[in-house]
Amino acid sequence: MNSFGVVFKVTLFGESHGPAIGVVIDGCPPGITVKQDDFITDLQRRQSGSRGTTRRQEPDQPEILSGMLNGVTTGAPITIITRNTNKISSDYDEFKKVPRPGHADFVSQVKYSGFGDMRGSGHFSGRVTWGLVAAGVIAKKISGKAVISAKLISAGGSANIENAVNEAIALNDTIGGIIECKVKNPPLAIGEPFFYSFESAVSHIIFSIPAIKGIEFGSGFTAAAMHGSEHNDPFINGKGETATNNAGGINGGITNGNEILFRTVVKPTSSTGVAQKTFDFSEGKMTTLSVKGRHDTCIALRMPVIVEAATAIAMADLILIDRGIHGERTD
Amino acid sequence: MNSFGVVFKVTLFGESHGPAIGVVIDGCPPGITVKQDDFITDLQRRQSGSRGTTRRQEPDQPEILSGMLNGVTTGAPITIITRNTNKISSDYDEFKKVPRPGHADFVSQVKYSGFGDMRGSGHFSGRVTWGLVAAGVIAKKISGKAVISAKLISAGGSANIENAVNEAIALNDTIGGIIECKVKNPPLAIGEPFFYSFESAVSHIIFSIPAIKGIEFGSGFTAAAMHGSEHNDPFINGKGETATNNAGGINGGITNGNEILFRTVVKPTSSTGVAQKTFDFSEGKMTTLSVKGRHDTCIALRMPVIVEAATAIAMADLILIDRGIHGERTD
Amino acid sequence: MNSFGVVFKVTLFGESHGPAIGVVIDGCPPGITVKQDDFITDLQRRQSGSRGTTRRQEPDQPEILSGMLNGVTTGAPITIITRNTNKISSDYDEFKKVPRPGHADFVSQVKYSGFGDMRGSGHFSGRVTWGLVAAGVIAKKISGKAVISAKLISAGGSANIENAVNEAIALNDTIGGIIECKVKNPPLAIGEPFFYSFESAVSHIIFSIPAIKGIEFGSGFTAAAMHGSEHNDPFINGKGETATNNAGGINGGITNGNEILFRTVVKPTSSTGVAQKTFDFSEGKMTTLSVKGRHDTCIALRMPVIVEAATAIAMADLILIDRGIHGERTD
Amino acid sequence: MNSFGVVFKVTLFGESHGPAIGVVIDGCPPGITVKQDDFITDLQRRQSGSRGTTRRQEPDQPEILSGMLNGVTTGAPITIITRNTNKISSDYDEFKKVPRPGHADFVSQVKYSGFGDMRGSGHFSGRVTWGLVAAGVIAKKISGKAVISAKLISAGGSANIENAVNEAIALNDTIGGIIECKVKNPPLAIGEPFFYSFESAVSHIIFSIPAIKGIEFGSGFTAAAMHGSEHNDPFINGKGETATNNAGGINGGITNGNEILFRTVVKPTSSTGVAQKTFDFSEGKMTTLSVKGRHDTCIALRMPVIVEAATAIAMADLILIDRGIHGERTD
Repeated sequence: MNSFGVVFKVTLFGESHGPAIGVVIDGCPPGITVKQDDFITDLQRRQSGSRGTTRRQEPDQPEILSGMLNGVTTGAPITIITRNTNKISSDYDEFKKVPRPGHADFVSQVKYSGFGDMRGSGHFSGRVTWGLVAAGVIAKKISGKAVISAKLISAGGSANIENAVNEAIALNDTIGGIIECKVKNPPLAIGEPFFYSFESAVSHIIFSIPAIKGIEFGSGFTAAAMHGSEHNDPFINGKGETATNNAGGINGGITNGNEILFRTVVKPTSSTGVAQKTFDFSEGKMTTLSVKGRHDTCIALRMPVIVEAATAIAMADLILIDRGIHGERTD
Repeated sequence: MNSFGVVFKVTLFGESHGPAIGVVIDGCPPGITVKQDDFITDLQRRQSGSRGTTRRQEPDQPEILSGMLNGVTTGAPITIITRNTNKISSDYDEFKKVPRPGHADFVSQVKYSGFGDMRGSGHFSGRVTWGLVAAGVIAKKISGKAVISAKLISAGGSANIENAVNEAIALNDTIGGIIECKVKNPPLAIGEPFFYSFESAVSHIIFSIPAIKGIEFGSGFTAAAMHGSEHNDPFINGKGETATNNAGGINGGITNGNEILFRTVVKPTSSTGVAQKTFDFSEGKMTTLSVKGRHDTCIALRMPVIVEAATAIAMADLILIDRGIHGERTD
Repeated sequence: MNSFGVVFKVTLFGESHGPAIGVVIDGCPPGITVKQDDFITDLQRRQSGSRGTTRRQEPDQPEILSGMLNGVTTGAPITIITRNTNKISSDYDEFKKVPRPGHADFVSQVKYSGFGDMRGSGHFSGRVTWGLVAAGVIAKKISGKAVISAKLISAGGSANIENAVNEAIALNDTIGGIIECKVKNPPLAIGEPFFYSFESAVSHIIFSIPAIKGIEFGSGFTAAAMHGSEHNDPFINGKGETATNNAGGINGGITNGNEILFRTVVKPTSSTGVAQKTFDFSEGKMTTLSVKGRHDTCIALRMPVIVEAATAIAMADLILIDRGIHGERTD
Repeated sequence: MNSFGVVFKVTLFGESHGPAIGVVIDGCPPGITVKQDDFITDLQRRQSGSRGTTRRQEPDQPEILSGMLNGVTTGAPITIITRNTNKISSDYDEFKKVPRPGHADFVSQVKYSGFGDMRGSGHFSGRVTWGLVAAGVIAKKISGKAVISAKLISAGGSANIENAVNEAIALNDTIGGIIECKVKNPPLAIGEPFFYSFESAVSHIIFSIPAIKGIEFGSGFTAAAMHGSEHNDPFINGKGETATNNAGGINGGITNGNEILFRTVVKPTSSTGVAQKTFDFSEGKMTTLSVKGRHDTCIALRMPVIVEAATAIAMADLILIDRGIHGERTD
């Protein structure tokens, strides 16, 4: 089930400490130029480095195995990988006995009958999002003049992100954050009614990203406290522009041409340095666990580009489906 | 794209004022007994009647066209329909010229090049959720001992729902609400990593429901203000039970056996009796629109059973996928 | 798994002796006019009547439940049903004990653990192809100027079909046949390489039709005895026309613009009047079975329109996929 | 569209002269041991070497990038690649102007607007079947005690394959062949009625293989000349064994437990050394083309293992779907 999309289809593979991670992109139109720099820009945004992210330097050079020739898509499936080189697997052996709270250690053991690769969280690692970002670079080229931009608007409950990160570092603890994503000049009328609504497609892929626990479009949860007369966005001209944007640019699951707007919440990094009481499954009794090693204080810092990539992929799929059924739109 | 599911696949069809609405359920195991009363119970919960819902009495008798014999599923696709009898289509002609704010009138015109059926909002009508509820009745039988229950926990920003509805009625306006859904005794280890995580599957189908604008699992958006040491749910025994449930019963996209918990927000009904300034597309100027007719003050009142049905369908699909790949689980 | 197609998606439902049979067509472009006569023409071609087909008069009036308004597609899922009225189920009770050779009676019992609807072969009945033909009527409108025509070119091994049928009737036995399908003016460059080649898509849906046991494109099985220099179709002009058509209009799984050509074989009707030795599963010993009742001597007589419909559906899906990825083609 | 399968999903990628070719296998159960030797055995069967196959020595060492740990599947997507090292791309430049008859050169140019990678036929190359064979090695482990074996039963119309190959080599021409595939001890009751029948699934994937032009199950095309009383396979015992096997082990699209049997035809290799008259698209006139270089006289010699792999993949998907819907079968 590790594919997303109906026409523009993305398949992710790889484990944190396996030989490589990567992505296959199928259904991509031919003739799209993607420069090496396009990849580097987004992959570096995802990479560690700034204060509050892990000091581990991940190697991010993309290697294109198929589907491109001289920097241009050919129409065949595109495969992009990167090698995993910085692997210290001994860190993780203990977690089979004492699964880390908040991690997938426990469910992975159950689901895969003990055969799962648990080194570095294996396929559950946030590292797998590398392929998502690489695919997003290509997907962004499909949405025409649309500009997708996500940013971290708060961390640890505070709009002063730097302060919040410093406080958490001082506590040896971790924090989450809220990312806001906007799409300017979005394509009009994409999204399929009912089961492949714009929100369905976007939320589906956004919730694939590790650590995401919520999403809201437009006014989102605050809509519950509004009157219909207040929440409805009145049209102001024949292009369909609206005076307000409580709908986040989407009516009936279909984009109405106004700016698309959603927010998503990233939980605090599960690997905290604070000691936690939890269960030792091999000893059959409670124990205290302190997760050591290099981890992000605030993984949300690295996630805006992942959210952009996911959005771009969902949009690319909806655009190609819409064009298939309706032909080129001339808006 | 009007199907949901990989193995347990649900296809919805119908328009508000067309001959009938209905659902096809494919991939349903044979031998499941579904009594007529099972349908009636859930379909009546969805139906109008209580204060704050439309006074229109919808005929809800399900007619089973295929896939069942003597009240038992046969393994062939199950088709269930109900006829639309209470149709006053003249209400809606005006909305081609002056699309109602908050409705799909405008995007429907664009997307379907003017061919869309706009009577009663056509295929965008909340009436199409009838088929979802009917499918949910069957899906609930697949999730074994799991008990899915959703309830409206606030409306118009108030926990006193009756008061909020009465206030809105007095204003001739509408309100939204927040629905909380819990699954007790959920199956362990369902959900596929990355692109078909439990949250991906559930959010996908929940956002198919008209008027839904947000969803959050476990602590949801409040997780952004928590520390990792606080958000992590420590294990307390060898069954994987946890002391807290900030994760909403899901780690790494996979159910951990604890209660599943999510909340979803329903926007205020778009059809408000309050006059709204909006654009007249045929005259090319601003106008004032008052939506008349029978509408729900608070559509959220009718939606818990729809949220349950959607959850049951997503869970049924994840259960059958997991059983296909891993065989029967003996937990 | 009872759906076919990626963008233009067809879902069949119904049993021979259930309340109704039908089809849902999702992903159909809006604005396509389909007259009642279009349906009647094709549905009558499928219907019984001529010598060698069952004398049972099936009611074929299509009832459109959704997705069309005033004879034009709206873009929403299209549902078409017909009621089953001519049902004599007592014919079939015996087949639970003595499954008919060549029928699905035995496998149906095993697969559905005895819960399958066996009346009139249930969902395995050729009657379910009614929905395929109805969907084909709409699909044919999508393939533009392409003209799909299938005909029975031999029956019982003889090109003189009438004779072959009369001989079989005299023997109280049944015969099969070979159907040839041609597509004139086919769209150029449809089919996706490797897993959704033109041949993959067409064979997939053709083998869904009960009684089909083989398919070959262009020179088909005779290609095994040809040299490459003979089988290769040389180009003769800049439009890509070829001097010969051994490829059946397809290279590398993609249409090359020349006439599409394939043949498919229909096995003899399994319900023969000739007494057959077979096993009595309830008595645990061999027995003699004579299938009584109204059956087709040569079901292949009714199948050209079904083959056309299946081809049209596969082509519609490939056309919409290609248009989605590549935009409108101007050839 | 370069994926096959619903639960056990295979995605192929790569071009003949690109950096690498490979495959992603998703939905594979964890805990399956696959030895390096298992891969080597099948990949060598596919490889060149014997008389009538190209003298080019392809490097076939599989590199596993994900989804396996210490030779055991983990449950995460499995990615296997091999590098392309033996690339002489200058051979192919001319084919943009004078597309080779029988090849995908022409359709590739049209479909991909000239952006397709034509070196070594790019993604249309038979070399892409390497990934299919690698995936087949794993798929074979899923079908339990079933034994899939395919062999070339004739070449160039002759059962004396060696003679036929020698004759073709003497003529500097190429020949095709017929491959017969049998599955002993097949799983009972796999295949889903109508759109995912056993024959639909198998033919879909078999027609993905380059050069395949026909397939027939059981008696296949000869069934057209048989009577029903002759074609029907009478049951002889309570296990469902039949006296004959005209159905090829499949009734109603579902396996009946008897040996599965089908034949498929491979056209003669398109790259023949014999001079062919064809069109020069750049000059706009007829020309004579002689394809030089290292090519297979009879590509069918290399294809039995590919047919086995494709069959194993289709069966694995049907097995997992059936197990998902029906649970473990105890037959």
